[in-house]
Amino acid sequence: MSNQEPNTLDAWHAARLLARRELSAVDLLRSCLDRIAARNADIQAFNFVAADAALAHARALDSGAVRGLLHGLPLGIKDLFDVVGMPATYGSPIYAAHYPIADAAAVALCKEAGGIALGKTVTTEFAAFQPGPTRNPRRTDHTPGGSSSGSAAAVADYMVPLAFGTQTAGSIIRPASFCGVVGYKPSFGRIPRAGVKGVAESLDTVGGFGRSVRDVGLLGAVLLGDRRLAELPENLERQSLRIGFCRTDLWLVADDSTRHAWADAHARLQRADIAVLEVELPDACAPLVELHKSVMAHEAARVLADERLRHRGQLSQRLLALMDEGLTIDGARHLANMAQVELAKKQIESCFDEVDVLLTPSAIGEAPQGLDATGDPVFCRYWTLLGLPCVHLPFAYGISGLPVGLQLVGRHGDDRRLLAIAHWVHTQLNAMEHD
Amino acid sequence: MSNQEPNTLDAWHAARLLARRELSAVDLLRSCLDRIAARNADIQAFNFVAADAALAHARALDSGAVRGLLHGLPLGIKDLFDVVGMPATYGSPIYAAHYPIADAAAVALCKEAGGIALGKTVTTEFAAFQPGPTRNPRRTDHTPGGSSSGSAAAVADYMVPLAFGTQTAGSIIRPASFCGVVGYKPSFGRIPRAGVKGVAESLDTVGGFGRSVRDVGLLGAVLLGDRRLAELPENLERQSLRIGFCRTDLWLVADDSTRHAWADAHARLQRADIAVLEVELPDACAPLVELHKSVMAHEAARVLADERLRHRGQLSQRLLALMDEGLTIDGARHLANMAQVELAKKQIESCFDEVDVLLTPSAIGEAPQGLDATGDPVFCRYWTLLGLPCVHLPFAYGISGLPVGLQLVGRHGDDRRLLAIAHWVHTQLNAMEHD
Repeated sequence: MSNQEPNTLDAWHAARLLARRELSAVDLLRSCLDRIAARNADIQAFNFVAADAALAHARALDSGAVRGLLHGLPLGIKDLFDVVGMPATYGSPIYAAHYPIADAAAVALCKEAGGIALGKTVTTEFAAFQPGPTRNPRRTDHTPGGSSSGSAAAVADYMVPLAFGTQTAGSIIRPASFCGVVGYKPSFGRIPRAGVKGVAESLDTVGGFGRSVRDVGLLGAVLLGDRRLAELPENLERQSLRIGFCRTDLWLVADDSTRHAWADAHARLQRADIAVLEVELPDACAPLVELHKSVMAHEAARVLADERLRHRGQLSQRLLALMDEGLTIDGARHLANMAQVELAKKQIESCFDEVDVLLTPSAIGEAPQGLDATGDPVFCRYWTLLGLPCVHLPFAYGISGLPVGLQLVGRHGDDRRLLAIAHWVHTQLNAMEHD
Repeated sequence: MSNQEPNTLDAWHAARLLARRELSAVDLLRSCLDRIAARNADIQAFNFVAADAALAHARALDSGAVRGLLHGLPLGIKDLFDVVGMPATYGSPIYAAHYPIADAAAVALCKEAGGIALGKTVTTEFAAFQPGPTRNPRRTDHTPGGSSSGSAAAVADYMVPLAFGTQTAGSIIRPASFCGVVGYKPSFGRIPRAGVKGVAESLDTVGGFGRSVRDVGLLGAVLLGDRRLAELPENLERQSLRIGFCRTDLWLVADDSTRHAWADAHARLQRADIAVLEVELPDACAPLVELHKSVMAHEAARVLADERLRHRGQLSQRLLALMDEGLTIDGARHLANMAQVELAKKQIESCFDEVDVLLTPSAIGEAPQGLDATGDPVFCRYWTLLGLPCVHLPFAYGISGLPVGLQLVGRHGDDRRLLAIAHWVHTQLNAMEHD
């Protein structure tokens, strides 16, 4: 066993040690609990920790058979997911005292694979834009991003090796970028959302955070029911690999930190003999950012109809403004919007006949200062609306010394290929840090 | 006001009278409650009736402004939907004592439009195949169909004018056919499912039952947020109308009752100068029935993971068998299945360049005798998997005197055109009964 503190092991390495019984689930869990005890008062990543139940679960796992791919791994669960024995506030005072009676399907699948639900991580209000108390562990007066604020911060700060997120606009990729961890938003529609509080049904996607691509591959293997995601190859046929660098139509808003990371990645992958192409967004993608806002607003006003009608006084002004806008968009206009999205999906699909993946900004730049807002999801709206799988790769630091990176975007449904390429590219980009 | 008992008014007529204050919400509700008191012990359509809360709501509506399209209409709510103040059993003993703390989004939207949640109607276990106690009001030793058993029976038996259903295989169209009411399964993805217990996320669709197409148009207008569905035209341009009669690949299993209804509709619409075409299913649709079974099994085993893992002993053998089959289908195979579905969707889309709607069997025949099973959803599996909107039209009686009919299927997203045609076709077919 390594001399590293167990809580600093990445999930994939920890899983190997746990499966070989070279690390006990109890030791790993205690190490995570120690870290939480030392740091959570400052970082506020967790809003609930089920230490005793988690320890009991860890002991049971240590004394029984190896259960599955996540055997003995402590998981941070975004407080948008229901877990039996834990409160589920969904980031809203409406649900401050709510204890659900069933596990979210995604949580149950992870428990089946031996994962340990350690506690709930802070979410913004209903995964929208009103922040919770979480601070960015890289610099505590900066936002960790949202909506999966607590999960990104907890993984970045070594409180847990893996954590759940969801993305409706940019709620996995943006906090991953701001906190400097790997974030994975799977293809839309592949992971059950039962027991996850919904915001916008055409957009909400379950995913998660780790400290390496192999970590989120493990989580993906369980959630997508495809073991191959847990066995990403160490090497790729680099001759046949084509990476499309895509500035999108938003390049003007990308700041210098993102532009430097971009130029760096471009130069280095080119030098590594990878076919690097510049790819323009197809025409039908131009309106996607505005369409995403309309779709999200329309659906939020309807999905959260109960809260809008019965608990208006307990909703934030930000959320009320989103819903009020949504109420101006009727079903006929929403249908026309979705027809435009379908057209863009057809066009983007043909991009992937020319390149294997797109490399594109995750965020405007570093995590903004202040805790009153979670940053702009603008670079994620395209891909969430298109339903494409995305992986954020942290590999650089911005002008003020905070993490930045880029996201890889794959063909719908081809999460396996995306993760394989992401693992390889991430290894290349990280190896280059010390060139 | 008509001399009819208010509970026998169809929803559309009742809504007009309520909006004009020619009928009070209290009178309509009392009439429905009387009917339930007289009949529910026998039919077992409702498993919970919130009489006092509903009366209080009706009084408030009578003394306030007209709220919306459903002002004063009592609604039967399938017991798969959460409603505050009512138990939500989802048809399972696991949830016998479960009282949810929020309304399902679809229920909240109907309340916003003035609808009254009257009570919960019996569902099969988690909307799958294990029946509840509901009897077919047309002949009480026959199944009402499932899974929306109680809703179809309640509307057929004049207990409520409108009721919610959901369809994952054939759970709206089949009970509508067996009970002789109009059933409407909207296009997939257009109605929020928040607060509705899920079974298979690629399939589950919220819809409902009425006694006329205009009734379900009212419900659709609210649920889809498109008022035009509440204003279906009395007349259509019949010159440009093209109806595609589609036997599907399952014609051999359709019994004489369905074949007679089919031949009758065919002859009569032809005589009415409608362009009637025979349409064959595209090649890519041939495997859809088997694909539907695989998709439903794979997803049910994952969506209901919590119940499978923590409450196995309280699940029916039928549901366990479905999930056990689902566990043999991994994510890679599921992905390949969904790719086949995408291909079929593209091919069926081009059918709708040649015809406006498809007319096709709803069920094998009349409601089977016995309450141990809910009948075969086989004729619905195609359309649910393709996500197309469907309307069941009751217009005939089968060999043993029970209701039969056919379903109209429309282009994805074009619920408005489908409902307009369905209203017109239904009027024609019913007018012909007495030729």
